[in-house]
Amino acid sequence: MRLATLTSGGDCPGLNAVIRSIVRTASSEYGSTVVGYLDGWTGLLEDRRVDLYDDEEIDRILLRGGTILGTGRLHPDKFKAGLEQIKANLADAGIDALIPIGGEGTLKGAKWLSDNGIPVVGVPKTIDNDVNGTDYTFGFDTAVSVATDAIDRLHTTAESHDRVMIVEVMGRHVGWIALHAGMAGGAHYTVIPEVPFDIEDIVKATQRRFQMGEKYAIIVVAEGAMPKEGTMEAAEGEIDQFGHKTFTGMGQQIANEIKRRCAQDVRTTVLGHIQRGGTPTANDRVLATRYGAAAARAAHEGQFGSCVALHGENIDLIDLSEAVGTLKEVPIDRYERVVSMFG
Amino acid sequence: MRLATLTSGGDCPGLNAVIRSIVRTASSEYGSTVVGYLDGWTGLLEDRRVDLYDDEEIDRILLRGGTILGTGRLHPDKFKAGLEQIKANLADAGIDALIPIGGEGTLKGAKWLSDNGIPVVGVPKTIDNDVNGTDYTFGFDTAVSVATDAIDRLHTTAESHDRVMIVEVMGRHVGWIALHAGMAGGAHYTVIPEVPFDIEDIVKATQRRFQMGEKYAIIVVAEGAMPKEGTMEAAEGEIDQFGHKTFTGMGQQIANEIKRRCAQDVRTTVLGHIQRGGTPTANDRVLATRYGAAAARAAHEGQFGSCVALHGENIDLIDLSEAVGTLKEVPIDRYERVVSMFG
Amino acid sequence: MRLATLTSGGDCPGLNAVIRSIVRTASSEYGSTVVGYLDGWTGLLEDRRVDLYDDEEIDRILLRGGTILGTGRLHPDKFKAGLEQIKANLADAGIDALIPIGGEGTLKGAKWLSDNGIPVVGVPKTIDNDVNGTDYTFGFDTAVSVATDAIDRLHTTAESHDRVMIVEVMGRHVGWIALHAGMAGGAHYTVIPEVPFDIEDIVKATQRRFQMGEKYAIIVVAEGAMPKEGTMEAAEGEIDQFGHKTFTGMGQQIANEIKRRCAQDVRTTVLGHIQRGGTPTANDRVLATRYGAAAARAAHEGQFGSCVALHGENIDLIDLSEAVGTLKEVPIDRYERVVSMFG
Amino acid sequence: MRLATLTSGGDCPGLNAVIRSIVRTASSEYGSTVVGYLDGWTGLLEDRRVDLYDDEEIDRILLRGGTILGTGRLHPDKFKAGLEQIKANLADAGIDALIPIGGEGTLKGAKWLSDNGIPVVGVPKTIDNDVNGTDYTFGFDTAVSVATDAIDRLHTTAESHDRVMIVEVMGRHVGWIALHAGMAGGAHYTVIPEVPFDIEDIVKATQRRFQMGEKYAIIVVAEGAMPKEGTMEAAEGEIDQFGHKTFTGMGQQIANEIKRRCAQDVRTTVLGHIQRGGTPTANDRVLATRYGAAAARAAHEGQFGSCVALHGENIDLIDLSEAVGTLKEVPIDRYERVVSMFG
Repeated sequence: MRLATLTSGGDCPGLNAVIRSIVRTASSEYGSTVVGYLDGWTGLLEDRRVDLYDDEEIDRILLRGGTILGTGRLHPDKFKAGLEQIKANLADAGIDALIPIGGEGTLKGAKWLSDNGIPVVGVPKTIDNDVNGTDYTFGFDTAVSVATDAIDRLHTTAESHDRVMIVEVMGRHVGWIALHAGMAGGAHYTVIPEVPFDIEDIVKATQRRFQMGEKYAIIVVAEGAMPKEGTMEAAEGEIDQFGHKTFTGMGQQIANEIKRRCAQDVRTTVLGHIQRGGTPTANDRVLATRYGAAAARAAHEGQFGSCVALHGENIDLIDLSEAVGTLKEVPIDRYERVVSMFG
Repeated sequence: MRLATLTSGGDCPGLNAVIRSIVRTASSEYGSTVVGYLDGWTGLLEDRRVDLYDDEEIDRILLRGGTILGTGRLHPDKFKAGLEQIKANLADAGIDALIPIGGEGTLKGAKWLSDNGIPVVGVPKTIDNDVNGTDYTFGFDTAVSVATDAIDRLHTTAESHDRVMIVEVMGRHVGWIALHAGMAGGAHYTVIPEVPFDIEDIVKATQRRFQMGEKYAIIVVAEGAMPKEGTMEAAEGEIDQFGHKTFTGMGQQIANEIKRRCAQDVRTTVLGHIQRGGTPTANDRVLATRYGAAAARAAHEGQFGSCVALHGENIDLIDLSEAVGTLKEVPIDRYERVVSMFG
Repeated sequence: MRLATLTSGGDCPGLNAVIRSIVRTASSEYGSTVVGYLDGWTGLLEDRRVDLYDDEEIDRILLRGGTILGTGRLHPDKFKAGLEQIKANLADAGIDALIPIGGEGTLKGAKWLSDNGIPVVGVPKTIDNDVNGTDYTFGFDTAVSVATDAIDRLHTTAESHDRVMIVEVMGRHVGWIALHAGMAGGAHYTVIPEVPFDIEDIVKATQRRFQMGEKYAIIVVAEGAMPKEGTMEAAEGEIDQFGHKTFTGMGQQIANEIKRRCAQDVRTTVLGHIQRGGTPTANDRVLATRYGAAAARAAHEGQFGSCVALHGENIDLIDLSEAVGTLKEVPIDRYERVVSMFG
Repeated sequence: MRLATLTSGGDCPGLNAVIRSIVRTASSEYGSTVVGYLDGWTGLLEDRRVDLYDDEEIDRILLRGGTILGTGRLHPDKFKAGLEQIKANLADAGIDALIPIGGEGTLKGAKWLSDNGIPVVGVPKTIDNDVNGTDYTFGFDTAVSVATDAIDRLHTTAESHDRVMIVEVMGRHVGWIALHAGMAGGAHYTVIPEVPFDIEDIVKATQRRFQMGEKYAIIVVAEGAMPKEGTMEAAEGEIDQFGHKTFTGMGQQIANEIKRRCAQDVRTTVLGHIQRGGTPTANDRVLATRYGAAAARAAHEGQFGSCVALHGENIDLIDLSEAVGTLKEVPIDRYERVVSMFG
């Protein structure tokens, strides 16, 4: 059999571990070969690809962040218009199955290809942990680890200077990174996109800490945080692809408000891209390796139109339709309990 | 309400995070107080305890390995003989519910107390990940991370010197740490207690690598590994509590055999106690925090005789009987697939 | 003897290791006691202090970032006006020698106190490594490590997306962190405050990489970087205490220029406060421990008006006047060689 | 010009950073080319070599432990007998200067080649920090960091179980790693090869801790530690190349003695090879990069028979004779002060 894989959308620690595992499983269990398309769907459309061999080179990428195949974002219209080209390219290259690795958007594309007759097995990828149908995605643990390590460091500097420290973490649409890094880092308040915040609540939680004699506070803010309608003047950003208002620099905006209302020394740290780069955690390497192996096996067993997923201790196959359509959000009651306990 | 907690058995990163979370949840959600018994069951029997307050001190232990309560191992006979004393001590201290944190042995004790009328909620703890009924236990991720980091380091030194490197990791009865660290660390062979090894298989896998032109090999061995009957002379250790043969220094013994049969330079590293100490990973801090909160809530809701457990994304309650009796082993087919892919 | 210590200015990993070492050396070598003034010079002026005991508590702070004594910035006028109060407070508390730990400003204050008859031994502290007369200061290695770890992570994400990545690191007046993190992190260009940059040089170095077929570039920018007069429009910040122009968000401004001139995807990460917080590196703990011990010994030997300093492998005493007056800058030729090799 | 380099002796984090820096400096500053001999002196003798290009591949090795050139140990007799062959090989390959990277033994060889007319610039390498004439060598900081991280982890597990924990670290002839890791890790006693230990002193220091109410102790032992004549029965190892007695498993032997005399629970961890593998610290990457650049420049300036060396903040050239002959030992008074303060 001859498999093809590609990585699409934002990069994510563990992508290379998936690629390696697809290649090794295909080679050692089935004697199959693997092709990698470059720069996401674009490479598939333009027939830019490399052969991936089960050698020392592929073995070594396990630890490497990013993706050796490069990634890209292709407009859905161009993608759909390219169906015949894609089919022709796959036929020319002798590909029996395609394993795209990507987030909700990529899996939507994968489903559409599958619906149009291409044998596809998807692998979910998102550092945001917002893909439906799977407990966790690789990259998420690394992002949370990086953010937590940063929060650990900010505790001591905040405490030494009696400061409120705002930490803006990734999460444009969902607050999983904020929730987990906030819990792991012992944050004193956490703001997530799913629950528009009332600045009064944050201010009160902060003041309560100082009234209790504490000298500092750490507040974790997901980049997609937004104020509850009518509670705070906030500079808005662009309208997003779903037609929704967005806000940028929300961490800094919240900092300004706390400063104004509490007369505290407030600082903001925006963690940014370090959350999505670098060597994956052991946990993410295991998950990515298992995803890759399961996807290669599913392809060999002809289970197309599916997507690998983590359920408890097991890697299962779900229908691609389960993985797309909506994003997996943080359950509100879970968020509220965390805020009530640590807020 | 007035809760008591204690930590029993081997220490484990995340114990303090559980204690902190019990205290904070009890205090902030229910206005309850918490007592900590010292040195495991012994402290309960001897009524040695401290009050745990929801203050900056307890907040800070989130990152700290070990257990601020100390731990210990009490002989089951002494433990059972002490039932009336335990009841009296709990009554004197005004304890409404007891939350013991420990491994299979401790949870067995917890179940016995529960069967004898003491209101108990258990929290499973094991770096080995061998407690039944829960997907993962805190401490396991930290142990795997430490072992993986060590394996990462050994790759480059093994490669520079054309060596076979044996890494002995924790896991006396089960091979979870070996399996996951082996996958995450890109080991070339992994040996676990559940599957007695044939030294021939290890030697062949090693030789195959060198025949393919590779210059080195990394082999991960769980400390509880044992040879298949009749395949290798091995120095035995003591008979364990289950009446089974044990082997010590199995990593070194395997190294000696490979050296003898392959004429390769072989070295052994025994990771030992560093796997169970130190700051927990972000992942373990989240799991431990969620366990502690769930246990405190279960106690307040009167759900006694239960044990918290991770199922997928959720923390559930299971009956204590589900958690004890047997150890959770690595599924053989999962092990074999890992070995066949990477062996 | 009875010593006093205090920490002043920005916090820095290793401050607690110095405090611990002063206390342990004073106690174990001389049987002396130690007092800690709170919040820098302010605590000395307001006589807010704590006794520091050679116990498990002090032992444990070795790993902890920040300073258990708190820190602060006192206006030099207020400080000088308080001389008699300071003398009175020291006399009341029975202090025989004062060991202030701080940067160039703090050491200036220490020198002034010494000139006015107070027995002082200084300990230099700066994550920026800009204090004269000593090879390195503690905190610097930790800052460089944190920045390097971040740069390591940014390589893979920049490469996967064919991006130019700007990393703004600490260093308002000197470029040591940028220089070392740039070398350690394999940056492709580094900008430091000592050498005003010509945006053309950065653009050319970037373009050269892309012309050579590389897919990405990493550029490290010290926060105090400034454009060569007349080479680039740059938004200015406030006039600093030396009457000089300053620029804020220079990383982002350089990013905008590169984007405009190269039509590349350019992103900026501002590392900020994570560089100055958290557990010190082993190297910084050793240096801080040696500084503390040497300062305590100097105090007992009556070598006042001095400051501890690292020279090669040795800790020496220098005159406080050597440590103040100018900042230690990166030698231009060393900077140019690094840029020419890696630029 | 055409340079050659090779790596000889035990591997060490930072070797690849030196190689990279030699190649980049030679290429970018001088337009020169570089050849790498494989497996140490053996490759030079057997004329096995690769061309090293200033490309993305060489750029990437900055972070990689070990040595891409492989290493080896060649018997001095064979080495010396091969002089004419070496000269012929260098002439055939058109080599103008040779830059061997290695420890005391390698530098001795380098000096001998230099004395015999070969243009040589040496680069000192040793994780043990035992080369004379230079403040520090790369790899040492990484080894100390790994050992310190391990000791950090052992504190919490030792404390939770009221244990004495022995940590055996590298250092067969000198105690630098033990001294620095002991200071950085807050060890309670440290044993180094330079000062034969009296087991009574270690036992007393341990007992003192328990008498003072502490619950545990951490003791760092260099692998080359040896008992003071007549103070303890110790199993001996082989006679070493200098004709001296050696002891193996000294950590375990000390543990046994403490156990016997103190009736404490004592455990031993032998850190082993993880200290010499893996990604170098930022500090080691900077030092290695500077060494490589300085060596390449020295070669181009015709300063043969020299060796690069760190003196304070500067990289200087010393005569190769300064680097060889004796090992740099820990000064006894420095050791005694550390033990008296923390013992």
